[in-house]
Amino acid sequence: MASVALYEVSPRDGLQNEAAVLPTAVKAELIGRLVAAGVQDIEVTSFVRPRWIPQLSDAVELVRMLPKAEGVRYWGLIPNQVGLERAVEGGIRHVATFLSASETHNKKNVNRTVRESLASVEEVIAVARDEQMAIRGYISTVFGCPYEGDVPVENTLRIVDRLMTAGVDVIALGDTTGMANPRQVREVLARVIAAGVPVERIAVHMHDTRGTALANALAAYEVGVRQFDGSVGGMGGCPYAPGASGNAASEDMVNTFEAMGISTGIDLDRLAAAGVYAEEQLGHELPGRYHLYWKGARSRAAAARSA
Amino acid sequence: MASVALYEVSPRDGLQNEAAVLPTAVKAELIGRLVAAGVQDIEVTSFVRPRWIPQLSDAVELVRMLPKAEGVRYWGLIPNQVGLERAVEGGIRHVATFLSASETHNKKNVNRTVRESLASVEEVIAVARDEQMAIRGYISTVFGCPYEGDVPVENTLRIVDRLMTAGVDVIALGDTTGMANPRQVREVLARVIAAGVPVERIAVHMHDTRGTALANALAAYEVGVRQFDGSVGGMGGCPYAPGASGNAASEDMVNTFEAMGISTGIDLDRLAAAGVYAEEQLGHELPGRYHLYWKGARSRAAAARSA
Repeated sequence: MASVALYEVSPRDGLQNEAAVLPTAVKAELIGRLVAAGVQDIEVTSFVRPRWIPQLSDAVELVRMLPKAEGVRYWGLIPNQVGLERAVEGGIRHVATFLSASETHNKKNVNRTVRESLASVEEVIAVARDEQMAIRGYISTVFGCPYEGDVPVENTLRIVDRLMTAGVDVIALGDTTGMANPRQVREVLARVIAAGVPVERIAVHMHDTRGTALANALAAYEVGVRQFDGSVGGMGGCPYAPGASGNAASEDMVNTFEAMGISTGIDLDRLAAAGVYAEEQLGHELPGRYHLYWKGARSRAAAARSA
Repeated sequence: MASVALYEVSPRDGLQNEAAVLPTAVKAELIGRLVAAGVQDIEVTSFVRPRWIPQLSDAVELVRMLPKAEGVRYWGLIPNQVGLERAVEGGIRHVATFLSASETHNKKNVNRTVRESLASVEEVIAVARDEQMAIRGYISTVFGCPYEGDVPVENTLRIVDRLMTAGVDVIALGDTTGMANPRQVREVLARVIAAGVPVERIAVHMHDTRGTALANALAAYEVGVRQFDGSVGGMGGCPYAPGASGNAASEDMVNTFEAMGISTGIDLDRLAAAGVYAEEQLGHELPGRYHLYWKGARSRAAAARSA
């Protein structure tokens, strides 16, 4: 039976883009529920300077509170060498580095040129390898940049080559503001695979800004990708709000893969319930489509029982 | 250049499932805006008994008010012989008949067995052919039934055979409550095509209940389908409300097809603006994903201009 893996980003990419700052215990509870649903890869936080992203300033405390769970990998986002040191101290063994394929986006995101970011990321990777950590390399705006528009695939290939040489285990290709389309996804992935990256080391990180995240994820599946980033409820930038760009909703992908006979190893109801828990804690409705369907079905069932 | 056709159902399938009853002039205005956006096939109303669906009780008056437009086809939904007579009197030249592939759904929808519905639909088709009308045959719940669950493809094939023999021009396969998945869409369509239906005479009518409408439409495209039903803003059953099941949003499909280099002949901004007009008239937010994105982008642009 075919199978895919969900890489859950809600505790990091989700919460980072939410106005509310959740208590550390609530984050640990959400992560515990994700684990209970069967998620094996969770990006739990970011080791940026605490004051840069107040939502994630409790990174070290959170990591200490995480439930021990066989076969579960907790990942931390690493902006630089200092962040890596904090992650090591905190006991994180799986790290994700990042930079953008678009010069303007990279500059706006981390105030560095792509060349500067690459050098910094390579240093982080070298140390992480010495520490025998697992390493993920995110590349943002692979399928389009909100500032530059089209992003040449050559930009991505250049970065991919450097990251693979430096020793990342997984290349995560990001559609940061939901500009990709399925044809482009197939074409870009074909180029990355042709450049020598084994498809089992590629993940895709889609956004649902224009409602295309699921279709784009399925296009990636068709060319052999088996690792998919998602966020419960589509948390992480509500599509209603100016400038926002919701993550691919985990439930939408798990529901569809399972319906297609592709195993995710995840209990969809438990995953959806984790999304509702997150929504309740955040205090506003999350936009995920299956999330909304599931809540409606649940309230209909409750109404039928009490009728 | 590859191209596809949008069959816009918002004035019928959309409004039929909305609580508000819009004035006839507003419907005519919406249809005029859809025409101005480049839509060439529009299902404008249903010729059911006026008291059954108050939202569409003005069918005959509406048809009289429709703008004349070169190359545009206005379709009317026809429940029975009486409805067909009203449509003929009203001047409609394109008619859509319907029945369900699921016995239970058909019974709940029109209080008849599938066998009874088939006989009635065949009579309508015979008269419509005598009147030299274009005829579309909808089959509902092809990809799953909310009451029965799985619907055997043999049910659909039996109905398809009868409809083709009776003389429909287009077979429209409906995923009435958004239960389809892309693998199933490819498999069912392969069976329908193998049964002798030319793919250019097949349309798909997807629902976005679980966020799968676009992915399912693209799966149908891959096997050769080029006609897609959609509703601006995803109008027609808000996914938030119990029991509801939004239509595939026209903007989501037009945006994605165009991004993939597949021509729709439609001006996406004008289409999106027509969706916003419909939303304003209905008085509540429509759920379409591109619709929400487009509104956000428009208000950001307005804010930037006034800043």
